[in-house]
Order: sequence, then structure tokens, then C-alpha cells
Amino acid sequence: MSKAVFYHAGCPVCVSAEEKILDVVDKNKLNLEIVHFGNAKDRIGEAEKAGVKSVPALVIDDQVLHINFGASMEDVKSSLNA
Amino acid sequence: MSKAVFYHAGCPVCVSAEEKILDVVDKNKLNLEIVHFGNAKDRIGEAEKAGVKSVPALVIDDQVLHINFGASMEDVKSSLNA
Repeated sequence: MSKAVFYHAGCPVCVSAEEKILDVVDKNKLNLEIVHFGNAKDRIGEAEKAGVKSVPALVIDDQVLHINFGASMEDVKSSLNA
Repeated sequence: MSKAVFYHAGCPVCVSAEEKILDVVDKNKLNLEIVHFGNAKDRIGEAEKAGVKSVPALVIDDQVLHINFGASMEDVKSSLNA
């Protein structure tokens, strides 16, 4: 099973993308974790290391899919003082 | 069942995103069509109307998810003389 992490920051673009993604992925094929940086600042480093440049983003195995554009990681960090 | 169209133009970013998407979507929930503009120039107008600004993009029902960035629709059109 593939492992995926959907990183977001609660922005409207993020939430709307999250709903669609949750709707259409095959939960038997994908072990999907949702990470909201507002509740998990400590995951920011891991996301950046994986190549996440903006949110929302879906990291599947080692591949980053940036989905639309809600905010840059720089903006996420500065809004969270992270 | 949701209807989705994955629009792309054969670029490496497109192909790599397509593989992941095909891999993880639930085919029982999503009726997914793949459109390669190189083979279907006549679908460009429909994609633009749906809000597609760049490829690859996944349109689910009426929502456009731009996934990473392969090329702008302007570049797609000029490379296809469309």
C-alpha cells in the first residue's frame, strides 16, 4: 500500500482540495494521513524535506503533488511563527 | 459517481502526475478520462472553459485541481498551433 500525506494549513483552497482528494482516493490502496500545520508545526520540517513548496500538497511515497495554490511554505511559517 | 478529466500534454511533469493519480484514485467512485491535448486539440476550449490554466490538471465535477506545473495553456496552445 502506498503511503500519502496531505499537508495543508486550513486555507479555503486547502480545504476544498482536501475534500475532493478524500472523496476520490482508494482507501484500500492508499494509507492517507492529513496534516494541518496549524495543529502540527513540528511537521513543517519534514514536509519541506520532502519537497513541499506550497500548500495544499499531497506527498505520495516520495513524489510531491502540489495541488492548486493556497500559500507558500514561507507564508505558512511566518503566519505560524514557525 | 463523480466524473473527472485529467488534462495533460505529454510533458514529463504530466506523465509522472498521471501515473500517481491513476494509481491512487478509486475507479469505483470516479469515472476518469485522460485527455492528451497532443491527440485532442479540440478539447482545449472545453478545458479552458472549465478553468484549466496549466497542465497537468484534474477536473473533478466542476472543480479544477492544478497539479504541479508542466506548462501553461498558452504554451500548450502555441506548441500545438491551436
